[in-house]
Amino acid sequence: MNVLKRYLPILDWGKQYDRQTATSDLVAAVIVTIMLIPQSLAYALLAGLPPEVGLYASILPLVAYTIFGTSRALAVGPVAVVSLLTAAAVGEFAQQGTPEYLGAAIVLALLSGLMLLAMGMFRLGFLASLLSHPVISGFITASGLLIASSQLKHILGVRANGQTLYDILVSIGSHLGDINWITFAIGAAATVFLFWVRKGLKKLLLGFGLNAFAADLLTKAGPVAAVAVTTAISAVFDLGEKGVRLVGDIPSGLPVPQLPTFDSELWLALAGPALLISVIGFVESVSVAQTLAAKKRQRIDPDQELIGLGASNIASALSGGYPVTGGFSRSVVNFDAGAATPAAGAFTAVGIALATLYLTPLLTNLPQATLAATIIVAVLSLVDLGAIKRTFVYSKSDFAAMAATILVTLFFGVEQGVVTGVVLSIALYLFRSSRPHTAIVGIVPGTEHFRNIDRHKVVTGDRVLTLRVDESLFFANARFLEDRVYALVAENPHIEHVVLMCPAVNAIDASALESLEEINHRLSDSKVTFHLSEVKGPVMDRLKKADFLSHLTGKVFLSQYDALCTLDPLTAHISESRTPKKVAQSNVWSGPQI
Amino acid sequence: MNVLKRYLPILDWGKQYDRQTATSDLVAAVIVTIMLIPQSLAYALLAGLPPEVGLYASILPLVAYTIFGTSRALAVGPVAVVSLLTAAAVGEFAQQGTPEYLGAAIVLALLSGLMLLAMGMFRLGFLASLLSHPVISGFITASGLLIASSQLKHILGVRANGQTLYDILVSIGSHLGDINWITFAIGAAATVFLFWVRKGLKKLLLGFGLNAFAADLLTKAGPVAAVAVTTAISAVFDLGEKGVRLVGDIPSGLPVPQLPTFDSELWLALAGPALLISVIGFVESVSVAQTLAAKKRQRIDPDQELIGLGASNIASALSGGYPVTGGFSRSVVNFDAGAATPAAGAFTAVGIALATLYLTPLLTNLPQATLAATIIVAVLSLVDLGAIKRTFVYSKSDFAAMAATILVTLFFGVEQGVVTGVVLSIALYLFRSSRPHTAIVGIVPGTEHFRNIDRHKVVTGDRVLTLRVDESLFFANARFLEDRVYALVAENPHIEHVVLMCPAVNAIDASALESLEEINHRLSDSKVTFHLSEVKGPVMDRLKKADFLSHLTGKVFLSQYDALCTLDPLTAHISESRTPKKVAQSNVWSGPQI
Repeated sequence: MNVLKRYLPILDWGKQYDRQTATSDLVAAVIVTIMLIPQSLAYALLAGLPPEVGLYASILPLVAYTIFGTSRALAVGPVAVVSLLTAAAVGEFAQQGTPEYLGAAIVLALLSGLMLLAMGMFRLGFLASLLSHPVISGFITASGLLIASSQLKHILGVRANGQTLYDILVSIGSHLGDINWITFAIGAAATVFLFWVRKGLKKLLLGFGLNAFAADLLTKAGPVAAVAVTTAISAVFDLGEKGVRLVGDIPSGLPVPQLPTFDSELWLALAGPALLISVIGFVESVSVAQTLAAKKRQRIDPDQELIGLGASNIASALSGGYPVTGGFSRSVVNFDAGAATPAAGAFTAVGIALATLYLTPLLTNLPQATLAATIIVAVLSLVDLGAIKRTFVYSKSDFAAMAATILVTLFFGVEQGVVTGVVLSIALYLFRSSRPHTAIVGIVPGTEHFRNIDRHKVVTGDRVLTLRVDESLFFANARFLEDRVYALVAENPHIEHVVLMCPAVNAIDASALESLEEINHRLSDSKVTFHLSEVKGPVMDRLKKADFLSHLTGKVFLSQYDALCTLDPLTAHISESRTPKKVAQSNVWSGPQI
Repeated sequence: MNVLKRYLPILDWGKQYDRQTATSDLVAAVIVTIMLIPQSLAYALLAGLPPEVGLYASILPLVAYTIFGTSRALAVGPVAVVSLLTAAAVGEFAQQGTPEYLGAAIVLALLSGLMLLAMGMFRLGFLASLLSHPVISGFITASGLLIASSQLKHILGVRANGQTLYDILVSIGSHLGDINWITFAIGAAATVFLFWVRKGLKKLLLGFGLNAFAADLLTKAGPVAAVAVTTAISAVFDLGEKGVRLVGDIPSGLPVPQLPTFDSELWLALAGPALLISVIGFVESVSVAQTLAAKKRQRIDPDQELIGLGASNIASALSGGYPVTGGFSRSVVNFDAGAATPAAGAFTAVGIALATLYLTPLLTNLPQATLAATIIVAVLSLVDLGAIKRTFVYSKSDFAAMAATILVTLFFGVEQGVVTGVVLSIALYLFRSSRPHTAIVGIVPGTEHFRNIDRHKVVTGDRVLTLRVDESLFFANARFLEDRVYALVAENPHIEHVVLMCPAVNAIDASALESLEEINHRLSDSKVTFHLSEVKGPVMDRLKKADFLSHLTGKVFLSQYDALCTLDPLTAHISESRTPKKVAQSNVWSGPQI
């Protein structure tokens, strides 16, 4: 029963489900449905798929998330970045508009669902941590620019293609003579209108005396208004005849459940992109869910979220949809509109299903330029140039990873961009860790504290050298530690004892252990005794499993002061007799300062 | 001048070079030359190259190292593992015995030399740290087994091939009918003899009253004796006519300096293997050099060692040789024989050059089985099964990386083995770091110390929750920290303040900073104030560059005790009034214990 409850959170919240909660959920569902219809169509277009696929991906996946998800406000469905990744991945195997293209997108959803499910079962949510924030932020910014530029062709009414910023712009440039000016007028007007809705409308409505909630809702309904007005204009003036590209006939009726085709070669080729989509979708979704949960002191379970998203993607694949995840803007709307449980998602699914059944004939005359305008306005809000500057100021190496991600995403491709960012951030992290901060320390006169000799007035003797290392010891810095110790011993011919002070060493791996053994061995060749001090409990427990301690020429001291008193009582005595004068001494905090 | 001195260590030791040093170096050089001749031939055989290439790789490279190297005892030349890697890399592009095969091996040496040189110039010696000790140790053990099994065919006198253990054994098995029994007799006898020399001879000689030095030298001369005796037998009984494979005619004369062929496709394809050979060769060489330098309190400069090895490999390529590095056994012999400066290497080069000019005709009748026996005995000493057990006991995750390296090396290939090991050890490290140790802490009554509430009798209040995190904060654990804080706040409805205690946090990267901002923001949504305590100096300096501190809802306390007194004076007061009774209190060491 407990296992069931763990994997089916619906059993938990379903028990207390009452009329009042249902009402809140219903209201939220109606609002999200209205918002989701143009979004679903637009993102399907972005992914290079027929518009109805966007609707299909907004029905069953929501039901699946209602059953398996833990966030009470997350709204699942097609999102911009995942749509772009889908287009990039599927575009390598099939031509847009072919049944193979759609088939591959469905397989991608299935694979992504299975991977998310597996990651949830094996509690591998940690994989998402490999995407550092600067890499994610850079990737989202670059994707936003890439998506916006890819939609330009719809606004201009030209045929163009390309997967990278350069290719897209060149391709559009070479078609500038073919601009359809009616399309351009509609697209430009819709873009300007939607930007104004986003930036200026709310303030205006508040000025008219509307309350904040209603003003917010009307603002979010902007895309629906743009869709309605441009569809009406297009129908009245028969713009389809004048070369304006329309959405066209959308098959009405619900998706027929079907199994994706199995083709081992295609599955294998799509495995990489599916993993990328899974991880990126999960990161986006879980951060939205956590933000919203925190507002009500609720919590979400990241591993169960993996299962929820996995189930959603499998449901999407089985109903002819493409990869989905939790979207930011629609989840916020869902939350603000009062969604109290995941049931709001199921009600939204019903709304979208009704729209698919009865509303699609009305959308035949919708210009594609309107959908492109909604995409452009939505994704440009993802572009965060401020984050680039903040990262630059805070950390040059994080900035390097971010800049590489942005440039490679824009000019080489989305998958390459993410992979470059991940590899670079891991490499830079290992590089930093490979040169940990170390300090030679001496005793602060009149105290039992030890400080960096370069920063404080401290007392040291000739015979004992104490090196404090401010990092866990592992393979990437083990050799650095060896080099540092050998160099110090070679420079200081009078040394008889080397003490390694370990208050900040949280772990010692097998490589570092071997380095300590080497240091011990080589120092003993140089007639120098090697000691440790202030080794933490768990590290000590681990060391006891190896035979290092039995080879150690020196001792392990509980405190550095013990070490000094034992190895160099004279210096300890000198220190005691001196009153601390100019020495800045902290009273309370006695851990290592640098 | 200083730059010159840095890049040309010979200017340093050359100044004090006198007759006495020269004598020591000369004696060492004679001994190493005798040892190096059979080794050079054998390793060339292992690399699938004509025997004279081994000799060529032992002349100019030694001169180059004399000029650029910093170790006073390192003996550069062909070594077993690098020869195996060469065979694996070159074997993919050409058939053994063809001029293309030799050409590719020469290009490999050149690329490896250029890479080592570049790594030295840009001080990238850190790249070698990515090879963790368990991975190196596992790789060397697996290589030893693989090399030994690959030499079996020479001992048995059959033709067999294969790059993996399985292929090699299957191939030998299918040729068991073709065994040449005379070859087998010679090979088996040589193997047994060499094992005995290694294990039993020294003791015997010491028993005869020889001093340790002489006994050691005679032991190292074992391979030379085996070569001399089997060559004589082979010549007397004309074994070449009886199907015993001999070394055959070796062109005498020095290598003619030449430029390697430039073929951009081949260069590109060999770049990966060249990088691997460079890094592995460097790791092997630098650890030998450090071991020997430590015995005399000398030091080597790892970055300059890269330049020295780079120059050696370029010299090898220009004189028709293949990749070289510092070898373990011959460097120890060089050291023991009294080599005082790198000049010993130059003298050895002269010795090998003389051998190439005048000795090669004597080696025509040398059975290949003898060389195979010297290889087998040498590489089996590299197999360290004890290290596998020790690693298993010490750390399961290090063991996992080691086991994967061994199995993949044996059954899939040497390059795949190393790459698997490196990737796995980085992944396991990140995985461990992604779940750092954290503890909720309370105050030890009557003190100002804070300890884990699960391990110590401490006092805590309802309103303040203090979480200590024992690891630097970076992208791999940023999300974990967020999850942990949100879970704690969701579980403890009375909390008003969360304090993050950071005495073991050595760094906070941009991802972790953003997580702290998220935590701060979300806690403020839950009406909880967020504080930090005991932040180290450099971490604080970094935080001041971001605007996190201005958003922080709470404060940064110098000490955790300050935090408690300010946020929850009642609990601080209760703690003061209680005498510590059962509480085990350490007197001196006041850093975090777990």
